Amino acid sequence: MNELTRQPATLQEVADAAGVHRSTASRALNPEKSHLIGQDVVERVQAAALRMGYQRDVLAAGLRTRRSRLIGVVVPDMANLVFAPILSAIETVLAENGYSALIANAGGGVEQQIRIVDQLIAHRVEGVVLATAQRDDPVLTRCLEAGVPAVLVNRAETGTRASTVISDDIGGMRLAVEHLASLGHRRIGHIAGPQHLSTGVLRRQGFEQAMARAELPAGAIAVASAYTRDAGRVAAAELLDRHPDLTAVATANDLLALGLYLEMRARGLACPKDISVVGHNDMPLIDMVDPPLTTVHIHHGDMGRQAAELLLKRIVSQEAAPVTRIIEPELVLRGSTAPP
Amino acid sequence: MNELTRQPATLQEVADAAGVHRSTASRALNPEKSHLIGQDVVERVQAAALRMGYQRDVLAAGLRTRRSRLIGVVVPDMANLVFAPILSAIETVLAENGYSALIANAGGGVEQQIRIVDQLIAHRVEGVVLATAQRDDPVLTRCLEAGVPAVLVNRAETGTRASTVISDDIGGMRLAVEHLASLGHRRIGHIAGPQHLSTGVLRRQGFEQAMARAELPAGAIAVASAYTRDAGRVAAAELLDRHPDLTAVATANDLLALGLYLEMRARGLACPKDISVVGHNDMPLIDMVDPPLTTVHIHHGDMGRQAAELLLKRIVSQEAAPVTRIIEPELVLRGSTAPP
Repeated sequence: MNELTRQPATLQEVADAAGVHRSTASRALNPEKSHLIGQDVVERVQAAALRMGYQRDVLAAGLRTRRSRLIGVVVPDMANLVFAPILSAIETVLAENGYSALIANAGGGVEQQIRIVDQLIAHRVEGVVLATAQRDDPVLTRCLEAGVPAVLVNRAETGTRASTVISDDIGGMRLAVEHLASLGHRRIGHIAGPQHLSTGVLRRQGFEQAMARAELPAGAIAVASAYTRDAGRVAAAELLDRHPDLTAVATANDLLALGLYLEMRARGLACPKDISVVGHNDMPLIDMVDPPLTTVHIHHGDMGRQAAELLLKRIVSQEAAPVTRIIEPELVLRGSTAPP
Repeated sequence: MNELTRQPATLQEVADAAGVHRSTASRALNPEKSHLIGQDVVERVQAAALRMGYQRDVLAAGLRTRRSRLIGVVVPDMANLVFAPILSAIETVLAENGYSALIANAGGGVEQQIRIVDQLIAHRVEGVVLATAQRDDPVLTRCLEAGVPAVLVNRAETGTRASTVISDDIGGMRLAVEHLASLGHRRIGHIAGPQHLSTGVLRRQGFEQAMARAELPAGAIAVASAYTRDAGRVAAAELLDRHPDLTAVATANDLLALGLYLEMRARGLACPKDISVVGHNDMPLIDMVDPPLTTVHIHHGDMGRQAAELLLKRIVSQEAAPVTRIIEPELVLRGSTAPP
């Protein structure tokens, strides 16, 4: 029989082969329903389906039940190492619940993001996880207008229109500043992230609040244009030009810290001897850089998992009110910080 | 009008608003067909569709044309940094061609992989990219049996049942060994990858062939059980116990090289002073480790792009014969290698 032309077995044929009613066979092959019938029957039907090449057609079933079993996931950049563990955790939770993840890169600004979300909606996704939120997010507006449940992860918007899972960005910066102050640093600077993103704004606020609490001046701040090593280096040069007397810098992101490393090396400054550095994220491999980076560890996997769970809950009970989950980060001490 | 209950505009209403025939409006809103009509008409229809909240329903259109516009992508582990740039490139090419990527983690062995592929088939994916291939791959068999076009990326199987895009694993190891030999090393070891994966086998063969060509003994080999830092450290300990006189080690993967770094540090051995180390992959951030790793750079983005393009070509012309594309890697010199 030719592989391309053979007719797949029908559900009725599978039911007949297993000696059960068609509706029983249907339940046995549906991960959401199979718990309703005996394990031995489930196994018999599954064995028959496998032997006969039967395939459940989720798409046609979706048209009948109006459920696609698809969830859209929009990230700024899949190649960014910070998002890999978030994505991985989201996909794992979705798969456990019988959903598949339609994952899209959306680095190119709001217009591209809206085009992508429209594409996801056209595929009838039952919900969307957005890791791209800006502070007043037009993509979220589009989802809400289309009646598609959405959850934000990693980045929040200003309002509370959707459930959100973020790290405690203010608390994380407090950990960084308190650590540096406890080592004896007084002249502490901050390389901030982009100010159209919640992480950039909140970590900057966290820096300013923690410095005020320690009765230290919080004026030495340079803002990076993006969360990249290159943008971090540009901001580092600006910061060190304006404040050559700094003995420590708390950065809003590990890549910004690596940009600072590069700029310090170019100026003949040693870390931590001349300047102590603290990062934010604890991204993969950052423990192997030279010197190993002291940083604020964010539980990215945990964030992805909770975002997926909140979304699935929202899909089941449409009226659930938005909630915000704030995950507490931890300071990880490595080799980039020392007394001044 | 309530957002959740309002009726979306129909195609006919959009056509009327734009003053065109229904079939023209349909073409204008279809990325595959819009080039057939004038740009001004396309823009007028799109503006009307946007204003009226019209959504193309790709899923229902897929049932009519039997095309889902979905491609499945199966990776061993999304959180593995090597796969992030491959995934990102695949998604970009698919999006450019009007396809969306259903991406699934499948680290847990063949059974889980088959379950995932069945799930993708149930979603009527038009094709699958597999980054999970074993040397005689049962998941590929499943795809071919179901008549779903498949392309392998990064890892190949023994046969040539499907188009494949891989790096030149043998050539890459030759670059590594020739570099070490040219520095004057004679006692060179190899930490091999898992031998059920093509990368593990081919890179080991590349090591043995290059050593033979340089008339050096190729007996100092330890096999790692997985491509992880921990498995690399275990294999490194075994290698250094058996061959304490090695002055250089070429590893099958950057994470294995980092495992070797850890084991060397524990034994008080300096890199490159006591032992030179070469990695394989040039994964993100590996230039920032201590010492910066000399490694074989693989063009992961290029591989992902070519895999997606081959798959789309295969979907359009079903009879296309499988091809194998081998991407040439380059040696990147950093601080982990020096004369013995």
